[in-house]
Amino acid sequence: MRKFTVYFKTPGKTVEVEKGASLMDAARKAGVFVDAPCGGKGHCGKCRVKVLSGENRYRPSHLLTQEELNQGIRLACLTEVEGDMTVELVQTDTINDIIVEDITSNFDNHSRVKRAIEVLEKSGIKIKNSFDTIRIKLNEPTLDDNISDFDRILKELGFIVKSGELSCPVEVFRKMPRIIRQAGFDVGLVLRKEQKAYEILDITAQKDKKIYGLCVDVGTTTVASCLVDLSTGRIEASASCGNLQMQYGGDVISRIIYSTEPGGLEKLQKAIVYGTVNKLIEKMVHKLGCNHEDIVCSAIAGNTTMAHLFLGIPVENIRLEPYIPVFKNFPVFKAKDVDLGINPNATVYMLPNVASYVGGDIVSGVLASGLWSSDEITLFMDLGTNGELVLGNREWMVACACSAGPAFEGGDISCGMRAAPGAIDEVRVDARTFAPAIKTIGNTKPSGICGSGLIDLIAEMFLSGIIDGKGRIKQNTRNRRIRFNRAVGCWEYLLVSGKNTSDGRDITINEIDIDNFLRAKGAVYSGIKTMLNSVGIDMGDIEKVIIAGGIGQNLDIESSVRIGLLPDIDRGKFEFIGNSSLTGAYLCIVSEEARQKAGQIADMMTYIELSADPAYMEEFVGACFLPHTDLRLFPSASAI
Amino acid sequence: MRKFTVYFKTPGKTVEVEKGASLMDAARKAGVFVDAPCGGKGHCGKCRVKVLSGENRYRPSHLLTQEELNQGIRLACLTEVEGDMTVELVQTDTINDIIVEDITSNFDNHSRVKRAIEVLEKSGIKIKNSFDTIRIKLNEPTLDDNISDFDRILKELGFIVKSGELSCPVEVFRKMPRIIRQAGFDVGLVLRKEQKAYEILDITAQKDKKIYGLCVDVGTTTVASCLVDLSTGRIEASASCGNLQMQYGGDVISRIIYSTEPGGLEKLQKAIVYGTVNKLIEKMVHKLGCNHEDIVCSAIAGNTTMAHLFLGIPVENIRLEPYIPVFKNFPVFKAKDVDLGINPNATVYMLPNVASYVGGDIVSGVLASGLWSSDEITLFMDLGTNGELVLGNREWMVACACSAGPAFEGGDISCGMRAAPGAIDEVRVDARTFAPAIKTIGNTKPSGICGSGLIDLIAEMFLSGIIDGKGRIKQNTRNRRIRFNRAVGCWEYLLVSGKNTSDGRDITINEIDIDNFLRAKGAVYSGIKTMLNSVGIDMGDIEKVIIAGGIGQNLDIESSVRIGLLPDIDRGKFEFIGNSSLTGAYLCIVSEEARQKAGQIADMMTYIELSADPAYMEEFVGACFLPHTDLRLFPSASAI
Repeated sequence: MRKFTVYFKTPGKTVEVEKGASLMDAARKAGVFVDAPCGGKGHCGKCRVKVLSGENRYRPSHLLTQEELNQGIRLACLTEVEGDMTVELVQTDTINDIIVEDITSNFDNHSRVKRAIEVLEKSGIKIKNSFDTIRIKLNEPTLDDNISDFDRILKELGFIVKSGELSCPVEVFRKMPRIIRQAGFDVGLVLRKEQKAYEILDITAQKDKKIYGLCVDVGTTTVASCLVDLSTGRIEASASCGNLQMQYGGDVISRIIYSTEPGGLEKLQKAIVYGTVNKLIEKMVHKLGCNHEDIVCSAIAGNTTMAHLFLGIPVENIRLEPYIPVFKNFPVFKAKDVDLGINPNATVYMLPNVASYVGGDIVSGVLASGLWSSDEITLFMDLGTNGELVLGNREWMVACACSAGPAFEGGDISCGMRAAPGAIDEVRVDARTFAPAIKTIGNTKPSGICGSGLIDLIAEMFLSGIIDGKGRIKQNTRNRRIRFNRAVGCWEYLLVSGKNTSDGRDITINEIDIDNFLRAKGAVYSGIKTMLNSVGIDMGDIEKVIIAGGIGQNLDIESSVRIGLLPDIDRGKFEFIGNSSLTGAYLCIVSEEARQKAGQIADMMTYIELSADPAYMEEFVGACFLPHTDLRLFPSASAI
Repeated sequence: MRKFTVYFKTPGKTVEVEKGASLMDAARKAGVFVDAPCGGKGHCGKCRVKVLSGENRYRPSHLLTQEELNQGIRLACLTEVEGDMTVELVQTDTINDIIVEDITSNFDNHSRVKRAIEVLEKSGIKIKNSFDTIRIKLNEPTLDDNISDFDRILKELGFIVKSGELSCPVEVFRKMPRIIRQAGFDVGLVLRKEQKAYEILDITAQKDKKIYGLCVDVGTTTVASCLVDLSTGRIEASASCGNLQMQYGGDVISRIIYSTEPGGLEKLQKAIVYGTVNKLIEKMVHKLGCNHEDIVCSAIAGNTTMAHLFLGIPVENIRLEPYIPVFKNFPVFKAKDVDLGINPNATVYMLPNVASYVGGDIVSGVLASGLWSSDEITLFMDLGTNGELVLGNREWMVACACSAGPAFEGGDISCGMRAAPGAIDEVRVDARTFAPAIKTIGNTKPSGICGSGLIDLIAEMFLSGIIDGKGRIKQNTRNRRIRFNRAVGCWEYLLVSGKNTSDGRDITINEIDIDNFLRAKGAVYSGIKTMLNSVGIDMGDIEKVIIAGGIGQNLDIESSVRIGLLPDIDRGKFEFIGNSSLTGAYLCIVSEEARQKAGQIADMMTYIELSADPAYMEEFVGACFLPHTDLRLFPSASAI
């Protein structure tokens, strides 16, 4: 097979591929991130690159205009390499940009964390982890007192050496003699206590050494993390970025499909552990000036598929009926088992899953939300790449997952993007001129629309009569913002003209986008209805709605009710709790008993498999309208 | 720095080195074994190679004759590379040859193993390990019964999932979904039980799967191993070869010195784990047709330095007063922690050390010998590269190590070699003609003399009057076997002329060799005396002498007494037990309680640091004579 070289000019990386390989393959092989929500199947149009030179064969697609083709723009997944090529990235997505937050001013989880801890304490849960640093003074050895270094430590610790009572990993032994002598026989030890057993996790010559816990929320789209000082419980660093697995697909299903390709599972694991989480750790360690060894425990929350992929465990059965994951609870293991870039013997605790589509992120969120300790009937909603719902209180919980697709994070939408700088996250539309007013994250030139922007946009388009209840655009040929897109074969609304966008492309929304979005919101609403039906209560019985997940922060309640995503109930019942998955992971780091509580929460949840519930389909059909076919459910929306 | 290529013709390996590097460096870098008992310091003359072409600078040494130099023979450690070179190995040592024994006919440890087990059982020790294979039938999942694969297994196992009760490593999870379905939901599990905790070590679709335990005796010179069927206790394969660390030095001291060079410790660890033990495992696994994963536990016995190096733990303090090892007991760890080529989660148990120079091999040997359960005052001697001694019975034990050097394994002796095919292991000398009769291991042409051959040779030379009590050769110029070696500057005895040897070189023994050997045997005998003195008993009070170690098998008791290595007591008290270190490791594999007994034995031993004992030096001086300066100690020898 002939081989050719592809040079990616923007990040400056070169890779060799076989003739006929796609530019997408080349990018993945080179470690160059090219977004591919559809998994490289030619459906989403997100993997745009600019071919500067080199022979190639392009399979045509309606997703690019003739003008774009003339400029050399191609979809990477549809371009086959037929000679040495030079390619430029044109994407504006910033997945590789790691955002290290300024904790002191910006990390508003702090107050949420405090509230979550108060809830734990009120329920009698001790805020105590199992890690400790101690300092011991050893006698210097002599010919008459010539016991081994380790025995000298044990003697001082007052342990009787019996198998099982104290363990010490080989990595600590390897540095033990050097550290002991460097410290002048006055050493620090990092200890982990579990029931009656102790483990020496590190040995140090440093005085007052700080040790940290790592919390990670592994989202399908975005990964968020923080480092916690284990003695004070203070969050000392925090960082987030896109999940590098996005180059293999935008949602869990496309990742699962990719995992079954040869080497796919390993690549997905590397993408999340090496490519994403270890980079976040690197940044935070750098910021704090500490060592990787100082991070001695971690808690990882992610949906079931993300948790499996994080560990390199096959996921194909998650997608096939009857949807069987490999694990629900995962035994605590060590960082070195998955090459997580912290102390090799640090404990890694995975938040437990409930079922294939309700994962540890939801259990973590419910832990953080306090739902489990509340008397009020509470609806917990996590609207991320998937839509997961929990309904219940301290006595019972039901949970379900809606096949919402990635619409809430901008996937499956032609101009959609995740909530990163440049994303339009608020929209108002003038009912007369159809002219929009927009706000972008970071107040930069817009690059696309994120979930909360889409909700606003669709609500405003409905309110101003641009679209009808079915999401169809009214063919108003007198307004230039309403136009027919020949390539896609449907009508679209021009939100921002290319003159004013970051990459010169128009930002639009078309009927297919709207349809995708309506199915997403319909899936969520009908999920809520199905859960209520299963326990025999009504929308009105919901006493509290907790909205978590990436979309939560900027979600406009009125817009969401107007489009029929959220139930039309007293607005005072709604509460946003941000990234509750990360907060829950934090709780598991600072409190051993909170971890046990997380396990109880997972065991307590009754999972409803919506796809196996015939009533769900009926609910879904009605919920795909704006706001719903049954307007009695939306009195305030119909009142407008 | 200029770089040159060195091509080792014999094994066919090429390596690039910097100008001025020695051929020894080149060989080590290329992974070509060149023996170097002195650690590459130009003292031992063992690293002979033949330079076929290429510029080089040679530092002259008396260890090669002019004739050899003319033939292109060089010492690798004294030859500096100054151009591209081609080199041939001329060594006859077979360190890289792995001997896989035919268990059914040849492995005479079997009967020793049986006896050792009888001793354990008589003492009420259960012969039971903690591993088990079980078979479980799982229900096939449905939409109504959609618990995870792992929960399905747990349910069938009857466990309640609580942290700490059952663990399952990530490697098992990774194959779990595939194996379960491949097996049609009828799977085998390999379980390890420790107190109340269980660990799933493997999952298999295979019916009647066999699982094995690995036993290794890590000798400084020779490494021996076997695989044990854990359900029957049968030894199913056995293999041994030289310790590849020999290229970095022949005895522990030269290895310790090498370990302090940059990267030295890592190279020594790789040499023993990758280069030696993993290759033995490979051979045995191949022979049995099993998988590496089927080996689920291991027991490793070695001297303190070997145990540290096996784990990559620094050894430099072992050599420096007050001689402090890093550990005595090592907590049980997992194979993947040191890249041992068996099931990554297999337990690795290191036999406990007593002190820096009495290690796990001795504890293992004492366990195997039954000394710990005997009423008789027993002397346990392990004569390998080091000489270790234990004196005691069921109530007390003292132990010491003699700085014997590697003489008993052929090191420090110009024509010495380890007990491998081609080694002269028996010698008789005609008292009139001084003509020798020899026997070689494998009955091949001789290549050198091993330990038992040296003992015989020196005893016979003494008996026939070739040497006097100080080991000096009587300058008998009329016998052509007695000659002056100008290069070395002393007299020597010609044992085998080059005409009859495997490499055409004369096999000789000179006064320096004899002196080295006398100091080795003197160290052992004075060690025995010092131990007896420390507990206030005499040679005559010894009721049993157990001889273990590589030298044991072929050792001639009469010769050994005659030269004053062994005490001159009733010959019926002597017993050989072969490689008792490997037998002890075997016991620890088949019996959990035997492992605890090994720990008790190590704790029970009182270590005598001979170098700190002034009386030892006095004893030593007298013991360097043939047989001793105090002939009353050797009545039978003096009677001749």
